[in-house]
Amino acid sequence: MNDTDCSIKATLKTVGDRWTLLILRNIFRGIKRFETIQRDLGVARNLLSKRLQHLVENGVIERFLYQEKPDRYEYRLTDKGRALSPSLIALMQWGDQWCSTKEPPVKLIHDNCGSPLTHSVKCNTCETDVRANEIRSLDKFNEQKMNIGVSNES
Amino acid sequence: MNDTDCSIKATLKTVGDRWTLLILRNIFRGIKRFETIQRDLGVARNLLSKRLQHLVENGVIERFLYQEKPDRYEYRLTDKGRALSPSLIALMQWGDQWCSTKEPPVKLIHDNCGSPLTHSVKCNTCETDVRANEIRSLDKFNEQKMNIGVSNES
Repeated sequence: MNDTDCSIKATLKTVGDRWTLLILRNIFRGIKRFETIQRDLGVARNLLSKRLQHLVENGVIERFLYQEKPDRYEYRLTDKGRALSPSLIALMQWGDQWCSTKEPPVKLIHDNCGSPLTHSVKCNTCETDVRANEIRSLDKFNEQKMNIGVSNES
Repeated sequence: MNDTDCSIKATLKTVGDRWTLLILRNIFRGIKRFETIQRDLGVARNLLSKRLQHLVENGVIERFLYQEKPDRYEYRLTDKGRALSPSLIALMQWGDQWCSTKEPPVKLIHDNCGSPLTHSVKCNTCETDVRANEIRSLDKFNEQKMNIGVSNES
């Protein structure tokens, strides 16, 4: 499968790197300046610099002058960057469930009502949440059905 | 923030690597044998070996003897592995929307009815889908609200 055949591959070209995803997590949470991101992650400055530049070049974040004299910059999410929110939430909820025996360290809540949020895959026709083993991926090139959640049963 | 403070960080320790996520994508789609994964991804054999071993050690996949004389193995998702389905779907749909101008190469459908699927973050109290700028993350250590989708507005 080449890049144009698979959106997961295309996505991972832009954000498929542990540091990149951690940087984005920080910007989502309001840690937006080079120095504070560097301190929080304990990442090498040149590596952080490269990752931020890659994200700017790919239109995921932008460098924003928030103060003049002295000039100070922060990184802000673009629409493309904000659209990664469900991916980060899904990865976080997997970690909550499978990588820890303790209470989840961070809870996601609906700002309007304070209730906890869940992430789900749903069918708009049946109006139900769909489990992994009810999902099939249809590849237009091969014109065949391929499992995305049921490969263990085959 | 240390590892136990953040489930995203914990998740990325297990699967936060481009090759690892592509290997998992393949196993989800039924490409489950060392040779076929290697051919599909064009990845170096020793790198593939290491990544598969890491996933087995972390309980995400298991090595399964599906034929004897000659013995043949394939990799199967465990429950922990199958639970990554929403994360891969979220990453794929981001790629569909933001990394290509063409029709999505792979469509996800509900096996029961054939309708396309969407993934969403929802509030069970309000019974609505929630947009990124309505989501807040509550950190129990700092006892403060932190944005996860609204950092641009602050």
